[in-house]
Amino acid sequence: MFNRTALVIFSGGLDSTTCLYWAVKNYNVVHTLTFLYGQRNVIEVEYAKKTAGLIQKAGKNINMHFFKIDLSQIGGSALIDKNIAVPKRRTLKDIGCGIPITYVPFRNGIFLSLATAFAEKEDLDDIIGGWNMVDFSGYPDCRENFLKTMERAINSGTKRGIEEKPIHVVFPLIHKSKMEIIKFGKKMGADYSYAYSCYEGKEIPCGECDSCILRKKGFTEAGFEDDFLLRLKREGKF
Amino acid sequence: MFNRTALVIFSGGLDSTTCLYWAVKNYNVVHTLTFLYGQRNVIEVEYAKKTAGLIQKAGKNINMHFFKIDLSQIGGSALIDKNIAVPKRRTLKDIGCGIPITYVPFRNGIFLSLATAFAEKEDLDDIIGGWNMVDFSGYPDCRENFLKTMERAINSGTKRGIEEKPIHVVFPLIHKSKMEIIKFGKKMGADYSYAYSCYEGKEIPCGECDSCILRKKGFTEAGFEDDFLLRLKREGKF
Repeated sequence: MFNRTALVIFSGGLDSTTCLYWAVKNYNVVHTLTFLYGQRNVIEVEYAKKTAGLIQKAGKNINMHFFKIDLSQIGGSALIDKNIAVPKRRTLKDIGCGIPITYVPFRNGIFLSLATAFAEKEDLDDIIGGWNMVDFSGYPDCRENFLKTMERAINSGTKRGIEEKPIHVVFPLIHKSKMEIIKFGKKMGADYSYAYSCYEGKEIPCGECDSCILRKKGFTEAGFEDDFLLRLKREGKF
Repeated sequence: MFNRTALVIFSGGLDSTTCLYWAVKNYNVVHTLTFLYGQRNVIEVEYAKKTAGLIQKAGKNINMHFFKIDLSQIGGSALIDKNIAVPKRRTLKDIGCGIPITYVPFRNGIFLSLATAFAEKEDLDDIIGGWNMVDFSGYPDCRENFLKTMERAINSGTKRGIEEKPIHVVFPLIHKSKMEIIKFGKKMGADYSYAYSCYEGKEIPCGECDSCILRKKGFTEAGFEDDFLLRLKREGKF
């Protein structure tokens, strides 16, 4: 156990769910922060609550926080602007190339700044997120260099930083592929029955957006069936 | 004239009004971004529109943007939590000492991140703000070191940064006292008739909060009467 307290940026997706399992294993005090930011797939927030419920049933306390911020006021991304279509059936080569239309301008900068405000208010030590660079979709604000520089900015602009109780930005998945993230989660007993990834936001994942494609590849390579699809099958929905 | 485009973070207060005058003098394309963040003194937003109107009447085009974000979801500051009183009648020595209860956790980190998203979306070059360190009220996120580090974070986490069209964070007032800011503004013809500073948010400034005290001292030392109070007098309100 680390002798620090944790704030997990928890979207309800596969990566942040893995982070949450990692956090409850390593920290005694775990808070989560979930954003309702006008995302097309806001259904992930309801699933986030279900995943947290599963973990709490297993005896781990989680303090959930929610923050509403309507990023559609900025626009410019298929994830927050319903007039822009989510790209479908792209090849892995295309997914790995360039910055896609699902990029929400500086979303992780915004989320990290808001998480910092929560950490200041609640006096929490570490901000943890599921950012990763291997199978990432080309988002500039998911890179390790950005996260490290942002950590420096956070500590030069907060009460905690000035008082020499620096906030750490922690990214346990940064160098892991989707396959490795799933293996890492499964080793900790992660249950992905409610970990939602699809950009479309419908109950049944589309299977064709970048996020669905990378997830499917990850589960196949890791040698597991996808808990989410298994649950849908059990419920007769898939 | 600089061969760049500008986004001014424009609260409607004295410092950001000065910045706006500076920007219209130095940039051909000027956008402003004003936040409605649940501030006690939200009246400043209406005044911001009036100040922009004065500048536009003088023949300078300004593209105004507004962004709603309810920071009272975080709380912890007298500026956004009506249950916390704004400190009154503090001495200049007390004002200069420590981090006051009006500190909104990491507000400038949040605002800079959102401004970055706008700059990415609108393809704007410079983010300009009225941050200053001399007569400041002890806010950690108003320091030059923070602004410079945040600029690095911005350029390591954006499309523009990666494409080597870096966004600059510009702080023309950083080393100026309130007196110097007012002199600087007046030299450019700034009209402060609607530049609002009071933390309380009533039409007639309280005259007793840190912000009113620093403003009064600034105008006195600069040898000008306060345009805002002159206007109130003209209108028979003060």
